[in-house]
Amino acid sequence: MQKSPDMKTLALDQLLRTSARNEGVISFAGGLPASRTFPRSGLAQAASHAILEMQEALQYDWPEGRRTLREQVAERLQARGAEVSADEVIITNGAQDALGLVLELLAPPSIQVDPETYPGALDMFKRHRCAVGVKPAPVRYCMPALQNPRGYSASPEQRAQMLEAAVVIEDDAYAELLFESGPPRPLLADARDKVFHLGSFSKTLSPGLRVGWLVPPQEWLSAAREAKASRDPQACGLSQALVEQLLSSPKFDDRLASLRRHYRSRAEQLLAKLPVLPRVHFSMPSGGFSVWVTTELHGSDEALLREALKRGVAFDPGCLFRPTGVGDLTLAMRLSFSSVPEADIETGLERLANTLEAVTPSRQRRQRAA
Amino acid sequence: MQKSPDMKTLALDQLLRTSARNEGVISFAGGLPASRTFPRSGLAQAASHAILEMQEALQYDWPEGRRTLREQVAERLQARGAEVSADEVIITNGAQDALGLVLELLAPPSIQVDPETYPGALDMFKRHRCAVGVKPAPVRYCMPALQNPRGYSASPEQRAQMLEAAVVIEDDAYAELLFESGPPRPLLADARDKVFHLGSFSKTLSPGLRVGWLVPPQEWLSAAREAKASRDPQACGLSQALVEQLLSSPKFDDRLASLRRHYRSRAEQLLAKLPVLPRVHFSMPSGGFSVWVTTELHGSDEALLREALKRGVAFDPGCLFRPTGVGDLTLAMRLSFSSVPEADIETGLERLANTLEAVTPSRQRRQRAA
Repeated sequence: MQKSPDMKTLALDQLLRTSARNEGVISFAGGLPASRTFPRSGLAQAASHAILEMQEALQYDWPEGRRTLREQVAERLQARGAEVSADEVIITNGAQDALGLVLELLAPPSIQVDPETYPGALDMFKRHRCAVGVKPAPVRYCMPALQNPRGYSASPEQRAQMLEAAVVIEDDAYAELLFESGPPRPLLADARDKVFHLGSFSKTLSPGLRVGWLVPPQEWLSAAREAKASRDPQACGLSQALVEQLLSSPKFDDRLASLRRHYRSRAEQLLAKLPVLPRVHFSMPSGGFSVWVTTELHGSDEALLREALKRGVAFDPGCLFRPTGVGDLTLAMRLSFSSVPEADIETGLERLANTLEAVTPSRQRRQRAA
Repeated sequence: MQKSPDMKTLALDQLLRTSARNEGVISFAGGLPASRTFPRSGLAQAASHAILEMQEALQYDWPEGRRTLREQVAERLQARGAEVSADEVIITNGAQDALGLVLELLAPPSIQVDPETYPGALDMFKRHRCAVGVKPAPVRYCMPALQNPRGYSASPEQRAQMLEAAVVIEDDAYAELLFESGPPRPLLADARDKVFHLGSFSKTLSPGLRVGWLVPPQEWLSAAREAKASRDPQACGLSQALVEQLLSSPKFDDRLASLRRHYRSRAEQLLAKLPVLPRVHFSMPSGGFSVWVTTELHGSDEALLREALKRGVAFDPGCLFRPTGVGDLTLAMRLSFSSVPEADIETGLERLANTLEAVTPSRQRRQRAA
């Protein structure tokens, strides 16, 4: 039994919630897709069609999800080099649900992650009582297509290293949002028998729909379907019917290309202005929604965020992305360019610059100035 | 690690799937709401509105769900006598997801259930390595408003017995579908501090939407929200926005009244023809979708279902509802009147009668005839 939530997470959660409700706060937090990219008219049309014409979208359906949607996911993976059939795809409530299924199946005592990784995964590992670290372990969780929060694509050497683990959980959530190319070959294509591949339409269509997928190794397929059946027991039928219709449109790939251009342009806007922040390090991401910014500061992420909120700016504190016990690292933050209004970027960064100046010990400021 | 699914469940699952795909089979299986009761035009209108006008329905939202919907659920529970505020409601992907959250929180080593109970719950208890039986245990899972599969409402004595457990999981899924009245006072109203109350809009609106709720005891609220955040991390935003709109319509209670009449009438139709089955026992349910039919036969549920499918009729085999080890019971079946086409009832029951005749040992037939 675990009645008390983690106090650190809770405090940060409260801070971020408060900031989200405060219209005076410019937020680089959350890693949300831009609401204005949601294909509203296409979705509205698809919803009418699904509700009025697709009988089974509103009824109980099989746990693994709609056949056509599974075919579409399989075809998209095939186009990237993976041998996957529709029968091997399980539709989930987004990638997080897929990760939960994998942990339920594997119940790994330990797992290897990147030095910074997706907080939702870290949280889930903790809840599954799974020791998390950066040293090799039988199970490896990774994001080869595009790493969150650092925003790089894995090199061939990094991919080979990832595949050294006995079992690999490949989180493909941002694969369609590389700025310069379509989605890369998934690890699944190189090691079908040991990769649990998970993905999502949250970044490319809408997170509110909660549609993602899991492709387990074949020997785990029956168990994974059974686990899904027990859990929910299916992803939202209406959402699946919407995604299915949008994927079947010849415009879907144009949409992806347009999203890539959109987010690249937002990234460039943020990056161009980032040098206003004092004593930080960052590099242009290869895709996705965010840039990872390290500082030369030590101390409390929570205190830094509190100071920032006082000045009307929010970000995702670095500690959320780091497994505990990776050593005494300097403070870092993830700044998302994906959903902050363009007109707010400059003011937001000025506020953040003021925050960093204010919390930097005067000795450190002088050293740098010298 | 559990790679191999349960073979009994798998065999039955395959049989029921095959029958569902076979248009020649008349199915009393599944316990599905009648598709024709789905409020399609209301949902289509609500979907357009949600997609085009409700910004946040398509975006990431807080794990506990939409504020208005939580208020609506709380108000409906208040009207039934329970002291519940909107903050204490967590919106889930249906009641099954809510049950999963409760098990994640409590991790009970054992649980008390009715002699026959909801198969999805039994399955989930097994996956959580929880011993299940009919003897008193610290955690009690029950359906006081309307028991599935037996279709009765708990008496005051039965309710008092349920509340003897240290923790009670109250599954309220069918509470709105009593034939003769509105939903009864929930156990939650009598023991706010030890009841985990779970419910769903799957029976009253549409299961494909996947919207339900959990009201935990107050001391578990933070942990339950955190568990939900880690799990999915939210119920479908679009579905929530649809349910919210339909609940806010003054016609919603008329809709419930009309559903009650509809299902009562279907129940009466089935019950009127049930006597065609030889040597079975049943009674009129007080609500819901199904009637529980016991036979005087011993042997294999799977074999009986196979024989029935050969003759073009399907049902939910009794073993699915029974915790293992409750003794050598006679074969039983759940027959759902909720979604079988009216015109098929008579033929379906004739086929089932033929099946029962065919599998009854001749000695038993003669005894009865004597």
